[in-house]
Amino acid sequence: MKSNETKIRVRYAETDTMGILHHAVYPVYFEEGRTELMRSLGMSYSEMEKKGVILPVYFVNVKYFQPAYYDDLLTLQTELAELNGVRIKFDYKLFNDQKTLLAEGNVTLIFADPISFKPIRPPKWFVKLIT
Amino acid sequence: MKSNETKIRVRYAETDTMGILHHAVYPVYFEEGRTELMRSLGMSYSEMEKKGVILPVYFVNVKYFQPAYYDDLLTLQTELAELNGVRIKFDYKLFNDQKTLLAEGNVTLIFADPISFKPIRPPKWFVKLIT
Amino acid sequence: MKSNETKIRVRYAETDTMGILHHAVYPVYFEEGRTELMRSLGMSYSEMEKKGVILPVYFVNVKYFQPAYYDDLLTLQTELAELNGVRIKFDYKLFNDQKTLLAEGNVTLIFADPISFKPIRPPKWFVKLIT
Amino acid sequence: MKSNETKIRVRYAETDTMGILHHAVYPVYFEEGRTELMRSLGMSYSEMEKKGVILPVYFVNVKYFQPAYYDDLLTLQTELAELNGVRIKFDYKLFNDQKTLLAEGNVTLIFADPISFKPIRPPKWFVKLIT
Repeated sequence: MKSNETKIRVRYAETDTMGILHHAVYPVYFEEGRTELMRSLGMSYSEMEKKGVILPVYFVNVKYFQPAYYDDLLTLQTELAELNGVRIKFDYKLFNDQKTLLAEGNVTLIFADPISFKPIRPPKWFVKLIT
Repeated sequence: MKSNETKIRVRYAETDTMGILHHAVYPVYFEEGRTELMRSLGMSYSEMEKKGVILPVYFVNVKYFQPAYYDDLLTLQTELAELNGVRIKFDYKLFNDQKTLLAEGNVTLIFADPISFKPIRPPKWFVKLIT
Repeated sequence: MKSNETKIRVRYAETDTMGILHHAVYPVYFEEGRTELMRSLGMSYSEMEKKGVILPVYFVNVKYFQPAYYDDLLTLQTELAELNGVRIKFDYKLFNDQKTLLAEGNVTLIFADPISFKPIRPPKWFVKLIT
Repeated sequence: MKSNETKIRVRYAETDTMGILHHAVYPVYFEEGRTELMRSLGMSYSEMEKKGVILPVYFVNVKYFQPAYYDDLLTLQTELAELNGVRIKFDYKLFNDQKTLLAEGNVTLIFADPISFKPIRPPKWFVKLIT
């Protein structure tokens, strides 16, 4: 399936009293990863929203192996893992610059209507882009 | 002028590698302070948005004297300092539980249209509430 | 097992362009939930850190059912679900004020040394507190 | 004085219900700007911390002119404006990709001891780097 790599540098504000990247920031990085993957496929998520399709998150799952620190330059691998009915799933692996695997996870989102938040079929132009 | 006090407990995620409350969180606390002040005056900000008036921030000013730490129970004093044309200004003082002044600041917001973001006169019902 | 309830009000800064509470904030709320549960058991997490034990997060899992909105007053149920070797697991349910279940999840943390981040046995005084 | 430019893309998590970049994120971007400016001068802030000097924030000042939106690619200009005793001041201008000035601001920090948080003279090697 489609995948890409994004470089992300850890901000000071994203660290905590333990001196490490706070665990709640990882889903924010993952979101940046799929933003960049979708852009690389020729359809930015902001364009998708303008076309009347939103992707609220249904499921988040993160496993943390090693900490990241302020100013670390991380590599995030994002892979479009599954398109199943109204659901789309991305798999993630996050590495530091010594290529240590820091975390892995996955995020499942639902194609939805921006007003009702009800699930809708993924648009055909989108399915075409990713297959 | 109108004022109130809000208790806020410092979250772990809000601290940084220095082991202190990160400076960019203070404007978030200030926003919570004016949310609670407006509620105490009988008009929640969410109701105001539903009535078609938004309050984007025009100016933020914070002076930091002493650090706050994870789990500190802070007291935030919010005062409606000025209503001047399309602008509204709030003054803030933040204390820890030893009554040490940690920071002070002010935030100026603009009454605006939610679509165009253009300035509008403050609604009469709002002016009445605060005077 | 031990459990408690915490009230949390959604901040404006925590919402996103969809007009809903951003999904990465839920782990921050969960952290607040276990902070309050540990306090209710007679041992604040900040005291635990002062005694030389930290609890880095190992696993986060969140399922999102319904959105939350700015200014919603939420109820977070936190339950200490499992203490297994060096791991401790908390289960969460988040409700809005109509008692709709918005999300559920769990977080597993590791008892660790604050310098090396290596796993350590949970302190006896802590095990005693929670059993 | 020394200055540089940093590109920053607005994350979804950083926007709010108004559909714009939340105002409390601007100081986080400014922090990224001075991180990159210091790196370009040959001394990363993380190295400075390792050498026993921290830079807590003393004063933040932001004026907001126009909103930024999700996925906007912004240009942040950071200028080292003043080194005065124990204080260092940075000036900022933030532009979108139409070169519209979105905001300007400044941040003053204090050279301090990492344990006591007491002010200290800026290290000679640092003064040499920036002059």
